[in-house]
Order: sequence, then C-alpha cells, then structure tokens
Amino acid sequence: MKKVSIIGATGYAGAELLRILHNHPEAEVVHITSESHAGEAISDIYPHLKGIYDQKLMSMKDIEVIGQDSDFVFIGLPHGHAMKVGKALENMPVRIIDLGADYRFTDTDVYEAWYKVPHIHKDAPRVYGLAELYREQIRDAKIIGNAGCYTTASILALAPLAKHHLIEVDTIVVDAKSGVSGAGRSAKQANHFPELYDSFKAYGVATHRHTPEIEQAIADLSGEETVLNFTPHLVPMSRGILSTCYAKLKEGVTADMVTAAYEMMYGKEYFVRLIGLGGYPATKNVRGSNFCDLGWHIDQRTGRVIVLSAIDNLVKGAAGQAVQNFNIASGFDEKLGLDMVPVYP
Amino acid sequence: MKKVSIIGATGYAGAELLRILHNHPEAEVVHITSESHAGEAISDIYPHLKGIYDQKLMSMKDIEVIGQDSDFVFIGLPHGHAMKVGKALENMPVRIIDLGADYRFTDTDVYEAWYKVPHIHKDAPRVYGLAELYREQIRDAKIIGNAGCYTTASILALAPLAKHHLIEVDTIVVDAKSGVSGAGRSAKQANHFPELYDSFKAYGVATHRHTPEIEQAIADLSGEETVLNFTPHLVPMSRGILSTCYAKLKEGVTADMVTAAYEMMYGKEYFVRLIGLGGYPATKNVRGSNFCDLGWHIDQRTGRVIVLSAIDNLVKGAAGQAVQNFNIASGFDEKLGLDMVPVYP
Amino acid sequence: MKKVSIIGATGYAGAELLRILHNHPEAEVVHITSESHAGEAISDIYPHLKGIYDQKLMSMKDIEVIGQDSDFVFIGLPHGHAMKVGKALENMPVRIIDLGADYRFTDTDVYEAWYKVPHIHKDAPRVYGLAELYREQIRDAKIIGNAGCYTTASILALAPLAKHHLIEVDTIVVDAKSGVSGAGRSAKQANHFPELYDSFKAYGVATHRHTPEIEQAIADLSGEETVLNFTPHLVPMSRGILSTCYAKLKEGVTADMVTAAYEMMYGKEYFVRLIGLGGYPATKNVRGSNFCDLGWHIDQRTGRVIVLSAIDNLVKGAAGQAVQNFNIASGFDEKLGLDMVPVYP
Amino acid sequence: MKKVSIIGATGYAGAELLRILHNHPEAEVVHITSESHAGEAISDIYPHLKGIYDQKLMSMKDIEVIGQDSDFVFIGLPHGHAMKVGKALENMPVRIIDLGADYRFTDTDVYEAWYKVPHIHKDAPRVYGLAELYREQIRDAKIIGNAGCYTTASILALAPLAKHHLIEVDTIVVDAKSGVSGAGRSAKQANHFPELYDSFKAYGVATHRHTPEIEQAIADLSGEETVLNFTPHLVPMSRGILSTCYAKLKEGVTADMVTAAYEMMYGKEYFVRLIGLGGYPATKNVRGSNFCDLGWHIDQRTGRVIVLSAIDNLVKGAAGQAVQNFNIASGFDEKLGLDMVPVYP
Repeated sequence: MKKVSIIGATGYAGAELLRILHNHPEAEVVHITSESHAGEAISDIYPHLKGIYDQKLMSMKDIEVIGQDSDFVFIGLPHGHAMKVGKALENMPVRIIDLGADYRFTDTDVYEAWYKVPHIHKDAPRVYGLAELYREQIRDAKIIGNAGCYTTASILALAPLAKHHLIEVDTIVVDAKSGVSGAGRSAKQANHFPELYDSFKAYGVATHRHTPEIEQAIADLSGEETVLNFTPHLVPMSRGILSTCYAKLKEGVTADMVTAAYEMMYGKEYFVRLIGLGGYPATKNVRGSNFCDLGWHIDQRTGRVIVLSAIDNLVKGAAGQAVQNFNIASGFDEKLGLDMVPVYP
Repeated sequence: MKKVSIIGATGYAGAELLRILHNHPEAEVVHITSESHAGEAISDIYPHLKGIYDQKLMSMKDIEVIGQDSDFVFIGLPHGHAMKVGKALENMPVRIIDLGADYRFTDTDVYEAWYKVPHIHKDAPRVYGLAELYREQIRDAKIIGNAGCYTTASILALAPLAKHHLIEVDTIVVDAKSGVSGAGRSAKQANHFPELYDSFKAYGVATHRHTPEIEQAIADLSGEETVLNFTPHLVPMSRGILSTCYAKLKEGVTADMVTAAYEMMYGKEYFVRLIGLGGYPATKNVRGSNFCDLGWHIDQRTGRVIVLSAIDNLVKGAAGQAVQNFNIASGFDEKLGLDMVPVYP
Repeated sequence: MKKVSIIGATGYAGAELLRILHNHPEAEVVHITSESHAGEAISDIYPHLKGIYDQKLMSMKDIEVIGQDSDFVFIGLPHGHAMKVGKALENMPVRIIDLGADYRFTDTDVYEAWYKVPHIHKDAPRVYGLAELYREQIRDAKIIGNAGCYTTASILALAPLAKHHLIEVDTIVVDAKSGVSGAGRSAKQANHFPELYDSFKAYGVATHRHTPEIEQAIADLSGEETVLNFTPHLVPMSRGILSTCYAKLKEGVTADMVTAAYEMMYGKEYFVRLIGLGGYPATKNVRGSNFCDLGWHIDQRTGRVIVLSAIDNLVKGAAGQAVQNFNIASGFDEKLGLDMVPVYP
Repeated sequence: MKKVSIIGATGYAGAELLRILHNHPEAEVVHITSESHAGEAISDIYPHLKGIYDQKLMSMKDIEVIGQDSDFVFIGLPHGHAMKVGKALENMPVRIIDLGADYRFTDTDVYEAWYKVPHIHKDAPRVYGLAELYREQIRDAKIIGNAGCYTTASILALAPLAKHHLIEVDTIVVDAKSGVSGAGRSAKQANHFPELYDSFKAYGVATHRHTPEIEQAIADLSGEETVLNFTPHLVPMSRGILSTCYAKLKEGVTADMVTAAYEMMYGKEYFVRLIGLGGYPATKNVRGSNFCDLGWHIDQRTGRVIVLSAIDNLVKGAAGQAVQNFNIASGFDEKLGLDMVPVYP
C-alpha cells in the first residue's frame, strides 16, 4: 500500500485522480492541497465526491509534511509551479508524478522557448511519462513528467510509423480535437456554456505548447529532427480527444507494413486497442477509461497514411496515465485501479 | 462467486450491466443473449467493450442451458417478454432480476391496464426491486422486479414524506426529466441527433407507464390510495434523471420534521446522499454511479414541499440497482462492484 | 422609420435585438451602449456581427444625447439600473422598452420585496409588456416593462384558464426549464461548459424572482389573489424555455371548455400557435422565432390540466417581444421584423 | 416575382430552403414534393413550420405540372435522382438548382467513379454553383449544380492560394468537421442521440465523395492537376462546418502575399468575411446565416499555411447558397432573402 498525495487537487485532473485512486487497492490518499480552497472539504468544491472524499484541503505551504507522509506526490499545478515543488522535495525519498509540463522536456531550452518561463530545475532526474514508450525508464524515476493530453493521443498514433521509419517526418500534420474539460475548471467567457454549445473552432494554431512535446517524442523514436504542424480544436463536449494524424509514407511502404508496425509495438499493450486498418475510433468508446483506440488508413491516391487516435483526455491524457505510471514505478500490475470499462453511452 | 447471465444484453441497460459486473469481485458473466445479434461478438455491437468482453451473443432459445449454468439471470427485454423467461425458468433454482416492468406490480390488473398486454405469470413469487425500501423481501426473492428509472428517482424522493404522513398524497405532482439513453438504443427519427440537440420537450403526459409504479409505492408507504401526476421530459443529454416532486404539506408540518424524515429513512444508506434542506442535486454529480442525491425545499408561501432527486438512469435507475439487488439477494456487501465515483465532469 | 437605441447592448438580449432590428424595415439603430466596452466596436465583442454592425459602443453617461436622438430606447441592463435611465428620460418624448424587471410590477412593494432594492421610480407611467394580454395599454405607454422569459411562457400558458375561471388558482405549479443563455453572458463557474454539459438541475426553488410576476398576471386575469409554485431548471442547451404548468380544474370543467378558452384567447394571435389538446410543443420548433407554442392535456384521473408552453427565451422571452411591443407602440404591423421561420434543426 | 418549387422538400436542406424563401421578397413557393409524405402537410412533417407553411406535399410524378408552373426548381434529392428530374425538364424553360452532386462535375467520369452510378445526363448544360467563384457562368445557366457543404467551406478557404499559385497543391490536407444535420434527417443508429452526444469521430477517410469536388475546383483555379486528402469528422452539434486546410507555401511566399490574395479575391464579397491573418472563425458566428468566415495562419517553422473556414452547412453549404445562385440567375441583388444575422448564441 502506497501513500499518495495530490498537490493541486481541485482541477479536473486532480478530481479525476481521486476518482481513479478510490478504486485502487494499493493506494491511499493522505493529503490533498489547494491554495484557493485550503481548509474547505473537497466535497464542497466537487459535490459529486460527497460521501466518498470529504477530507479537507490543505495548503502546499506544508509541502515538507506532505513529502514526509507520502511515497508519491501527484502534482496538478499550472506549469512553472510544479518545478518549485520538485525542488522542495529534491532531497526526500518521495517520488513525483507531475501532470503538467515542467518535467516533460529533455531539453529545457525548448521548454523555456515555448512556455516563456525560466526553468529552475534543469538537472532534475526525470523521465517522460508516456508509459507505453518509456516504461523501463519510468520504473525507477524520481520524477515522472506525465505526458500531456493531446500529446499522448498524437504520439501513440505516430510512434510505430516513426520508429519503423515508414513516414517522412517533415510531412506530419496533426489535427486534434478536444472536449472542453481540457481547458480546465476556471470560468472564462470563451468557455461559457452558451458560447461553445453548437459551435466548433480551432485555437492555438502553430503556437500550441504541445507541439514541441510531440516533436521531441517523434524525433526520439525516428532519430530524425522533427518539425510538424499541430492544430488543436475545441469540441462542444466534456471529455475526449481525437487526433487525426497525416504523413506521407516513404516510397514502397505498404498497408501491411503499417499494420505490422502497430501490432509489433502495441500487440501486448492492454491500454492501446488496435481498431485496425480502416478502423474508426470514437471518443465515446474510451470515455472514462484509460484506453487509447487506434485506427489507420492508407490513401493510395496521395501516398499518405491517416491515423486516428482516441483517448479520454482526463484519463489516458492525464490522471489515468499518471496512475499507470505510478503502478509501473511501484512495481504493481499496470492495470491496478485502471481496469475500468468505458462509460457508454 | 456467482454465475450470472444477461438475457437481452445489447440494450443500454445490458451494456451497463456488463460495465458494472466487470469490476464485481463475486460475479462471473457466463452467457449473454440477443435475438437480433446472436452469433456476433458483443464488442462488435459495442466497440467500447473491445478487449474487455469479446464473447459471442447467443439466442435465448437456449434458455434452459442458460438457466442451468446460472445462479442469477438478469433480463433486459421489453415488457411482455420477461415473463416468458420467468415462466420458462420457474422450476429451476436460478433466480431472476428483471430490469423491465413485468414483475414490478403487486396487482397485475394495474399492469394489464397500463401495459395493454395480458400478464401470463400472475402468481410469480416476486418482489419490487427498490433496494432501500424492500431490502428484506429482496433477500430471498425468486424474482426481483427491478424498479424503473423515473420511478426510482421519484419514489426515493417521496418515500420519507409518504411514510411519515407529512404530505397530502392527492396533491403530488412529479415533474421528471431524463437523458435520451432512457429511450433505448433503437434509432427513431424522434431521437435522431439533430432533432433533439438544443431542444427540450415533454412526452407521455398523463399516460406514462411509470405513473402506476410510483403510485403503488406511495400507497404502500402511506397506507393511502394514491393517484398523482407524473410528467416525463426529454433532456438533450445522454444520461441522468432529475425528478422534481411537489406536494402540499399537512397542517403543522415543519421543515425540521421533513428533514428528520429523510435522515431517519436514509441516514444509513450509502447510495442515497442527503444534499439536505435547500440543496440542489445535479445529474452530473451522480453520473456513472449508483447514487441518488436528494435535496428538499419548503415553500412557506404555498405550503408545499419540493423535493429534487437525481440519479443516473442507467445505474441506480437500471443496471446499478439490479446489481445492488443481486448483492442483497446473494448476501454480499451491497456496495460490491458499485463503489464507483461519479464521472465528473 | 423610428430611431431606436439600445442601452446595455452587449448582453445576449441586446445582441438579439440587433439581430432582429437588422431586418426591421421601420427601425434604425442609432446608438448602442456598454459601460465595460465603451469605445469598442460591437463586432469585436460579438464577432458574429462583423460586417453587419461594426459601430462603436458608447457609454450611457451620454443618456441625454441618446434620449434626444431616439424615438425609442430599449434597455438591457440588470434590474435596479433601468429605472435610473427611466428617470433620466422622464421628461423627454422618447419612449422606453425595458427588458428587465424594473417596470414590470404594478405594486412596487412586491418588486422591492423580491428584488431587494428600493424602487426609485414608483410613479412611472408604465405598462406590463406582454403583448397578447396588454396590447391596448401598450399602444400609448411611455414605459413598457417587457415581460420576463419564464413569465412569458408561463403566463401565456395559464392565461386562458385563469381568465375563464377554469382552474383553482391555489393549485398552480409551474415547472419551467431554460437553456443557459437565460443566465446571461458573464462567465461563472456554475455555467462553465464542462460543468453543465450532460447535466440537469434546478435552481431558485421557491425563491425565483419570476414568481411574483406570474402571480401578478394570473391574479389580474382571474380576479383572485394568487400564490403559486414556480421552479426553474437549467437545460444543457443554449436557447429555449419549456414551461410545464399544472392546476386542478374546477368542478365540471371539460376538455372542450379548456380548448375553447385557448381558441377564444389566441385564435387570432399570430405568435401564439395552438398545438392543441394532447399536443407537445418543443423548444426547437420555436428556436430563433417569436412564436409561443401551446399544448394542453387533461388528466381525468387527477382532475388536473397540464399545459406545455415553448418559447425562445431570447426572442419571445426578451428581444422579440420587445420588438413586438415596439411595433404595437409605433402603430406598425405587429409582425414587422419578426416574421422569422424557426431555425430547425 | 419568381415562382419556385422544391423537389424533395422534406430533407433538412428542403426545410431550410423554405425558411429562407419565406423572407425572400421576389420568390413564391408554388409546389413542394415528397415521395414518402405526398398528400401530407409539410407542417405535419416539420411542426416548426406550422402557421407559416401548411401546404400539402405532392409527388414528383407530377413533374410536368411542376415544371410548367415554376420559373425555378430546387432539387433536394439523393444523388442519382436529380438527373432524372433534369432530363424530364430538359425542354421546358424552367431552370434548375440541384443541391445534390449530379450536376457538380465537369467530367462525368469522375462522378461515376466516386458515386458508383451511371450518369444519364452527361451533356446537361450546367455550371458549378459556387457563387463567389463562378458567378458569371451562373447568370444564364440552365442547370446549376449547387456546391456541396464541405466543399464550399474548403474551396473558399483554398481558392485564393490556388489561384495565385501560393501553395504546392500536392501538399494539401483538408481536415473538416461537421454538425450532424449534414447527415440528413433519416434515423440511423449511428446518429441516434446517445451514440453521438459527448463523442467525436472521423468517417469516410480517403473515400468521401466531396474529395473530387474540391480537387476539381482547385485544379481549375491553379491550373494544376490536384490530388489531396480530405477527412470529414462528425461534431456532436446540429449545424456548422469548420474546415482546417493545410498546404506548403511555395518558396518565398510571405504572410502579406497570402493576406493580399484573400483580400483581392473576397474584398468585395458580402458573404465571405475575412477574419484575417491569425483569425479564428467559429461555426457559431455564422450559424443560421449565409456567411463563410475565413482566417489564415502562417507557420514559419514548417512553411505551411493553415486556413480555417466556417460556414453553416445548411445555409452557405446548401439552401443559402442555392438562393444566392437563384438571385444571381434571376438578376436580383445577391443578398435578397439572405441578409440574415447569425443566430448567436
């Protein structure tokens, strides 16, 4: 039984962690924090938790107590803040799973260029927390930089093609669509219900911060420097990401070779479901679960492969992946607490 | 470990049963049936089940085999069909939990008047399957007529008031609202996506078949014959029922007496959460879970009590309640397999 | 051609006024105001207006100029503010149509009791702006207190029954449901997209300020003091109100008498469509239009009539009704600018 | 005043034509047809039309009468059926605006290859009905093959780039998203409300029939043979299309050159609104209107231009464009009946 705490528990990812951990047989939530709601019960902030989690939120000013009491700390803070926590816990045995961006980049210059803040923990012993790709490194990591939501969907979609050198990496276009929970719980006019209902739009074209994270992984897998287009869109729904990925196939690559690459990489992965050649994942099919569903299509006319990838942004794209990483880092069965059937319809 | 089968597994309630039973430590699904999809894998009908349930659907022509192999049979068939299954399994030790209406009525004349079909199993040894109210009778029942979705929300809302004689039962008005999954999975133009999106309407005014079911329970609790208004509405969402119940308070009844009645009846119930006097349940707070959230309001100006009740129509209103009844009937902890945190947001 | 201005043009009702007035052949928008956005173009605040209305918003500090330049002023301000404008324009020939509550009440004590602000313009020459009921008084009114959204739907539903003394007014229960645009454009966490999507809830039980407005009209029509229950709910959609109204029929009242009352009162009204006995209005059928659709049901078992009423809260419930009142007050054809087909689906 | 008829009036595009034509000062609807509902009133099929259009639907067996009585016939039939109507009216003076695919292709071999039916009217005197691009040819056309919904959004987005040779046409990727009304009014399980709500998915990857239509227009504009990727997706909303178009800029092309191309081509177009460089169209901003909003972005890192295009699929993507073509063909002001403010929110 591991003791875990959540720093920044009142965001959607924090609440989702509580949901998942409640059914985890080897985790006990010891502390949860919120700066704006310290002293209040979490079930006052999230009434759906009433009777399940009624404990009080504390401030992260008590980070030392938290660090001492916990085997693992999950961090659900905005970027720039997690690394302060990481520094503070540097010399304690507690391990860290950060759901934000601070520990995702090997090259902190890239982080600084896209996130516009100085990185204060450049030498942190960290690993990129995308379980299917970096499982071995995750096992013993002090700090796990949990992969982002769009990036998880997009990297899992493209990884077999990049690793097996089946595509021209400079032709990659990732067109991704997310439910609104990806934007967090803070009220903004742009995400006010009537503004989004029955509407669809793009945002962050050519500037979204998940771009370099996808590039880093594709470069790592392919061995080639990678610059690509990533375009996020807002879908009028709560949960789910669908990522539609395009790339030119290399000369001579066949549909069978593409399919073989997916089977080789994911054939034994429980959380990656291969819908197959010609398959159509839908976000509803993974809602509330840790699955990533993949389907791929070859367009002979244009020589492009189109890969479709669906996840629940709050599960495989955030809290579920964090628990999957926690399981790996703890030596547990990777499915512990995550063996949930998608909530359909 | 109990062996269970599902007759009519391809409706939404059947699929929800599979979702819940997957995490039930003491249940094993042995057979699932569908007449229209016999021979197909359930995951071809419901792709969200891929990798979790890939077993084949059989026909219920093999009901004897199913009966022999199972400790419990869950029935998810349209009304009029479950009683045929009940008859067929009459002399076998298997126990039955019917999610439809066939076994809900003490007086089969009422059933016949509202459902317009002759009842062919009038002497069935049955109990009304609303766990919080009929727990003792459920323990040893051969056949459990699982309470309906609207009725569960409405009866739980009104029960303490009826039982403690706090309201005039002839003034009861139940105005209920349901997500579209309550209408089943069959495509109809009325439930075609663009027809319902950004729209709201009533249906079945003064004629809906859940009316006599609510009346039966209120009469049973209050000891008074009960005739009431029940009006269902369709909300453009997938899951959830909110029931708004109105009744005149009897002379001299105070807010404290009302609150006391709720606390007396439900104070120890895990699945009924008392949001309290002045409280506002929301369907999102119970989504994907077996909870029923209750809030009550007293209008001094009109002398009425207004009770708000929220459930997930597919869980507490169908599959979750069925599993709760299964737990009671099996002598298990009532929370087994049902201790799920609502899926928020 | 009348010159009109809009005080408080950046709320949803203000924007809807602009939409409607654009196609009005006898109205010219001369000034629009906003305190928070003064100096900005309205199309920067509402990009859907780009190329149609690109004019600048002014502050209402210049109310005198506005008053002088305008034949009519529409006010779209929060309650408590419109009466300041009314006072300021008291001695100018300009006429006023207030979309808020300040001028809706005959008895300002009622206003003060429910709105908790002192009324500063008690002697204002005003009329309640529900066109179908108060048409004659509207013609020459200096100030028209445009009826509220829930109230329009509810009063139109109950008016024939009250006027013809067919119901016991002390048994009235109004259970109303609104799309989220009714809550205005300001971002609040409660109306944040993921909080409401796939959710349904009530609010303001026994305390909503539209209650006394409905009571005032029913009392006026029936000649009997009226106290009733009004319960609003939030539907996860943008536009539309459905009001479900319950009342006990008086002894001896038949379905035919009820139907006759509706036909007598609304038979010649263009904007009230009688869906008839047993009919089911849906908000989608009136979306974007000034129609109010009515259907009524008699429950012989309980002796109650159930009336269903659907409007678009921003049109017949706000801006459309305001323009209808403007047409009446200007001696125009009531349909001018309002002869719009509902936007379906 | 032109007399117009609608063949196939009971689809969503037919109903939308009725909505628009109701406010058209120079059009009179004389006949409307439906094979499955002949003899019924259109307002029984579409209750939102009650009191506006209550006329009876006739069968198109009477096509000759229809042809004689009409100046224009709009056709809203599935592909393969419109050309039969076109043949039947070949020798009558009536002019035809087909909202389907039968008359969209210059090369009927392309039509036959993608639509899998023989073309029976290959020599039809026809023009592609995308008003902004083919205005001159539309003026005198006998038959106008109204552009498709996805194609209108996508072609308008790419046209300035193709015409001015600013992009490599073999790098074009069009990732498009549509509301569900685009799938028509027929009930199918795939479009059943609960199946789509809170879900997002792609369909028709590499096979959708709008692909060759976009290719035809880009080839025509650029003078280069064009093969591209087009991927449609289903958004859980009623109306609206957003098309996200990617292409590599030619060597040396700057942001200013791109912007100039849009301004040159659309600067005087009322229905194309230039949101500009860095702009974000949203489908809600054009809902219910004939506008196409365009925004474009340059990604210096990848050398790609990303163009965003938003339309209402039933207006600019179907009925609105048909009326725009009708106006052009009649010598009317192009805005007649179409000068509608988008319905927001």
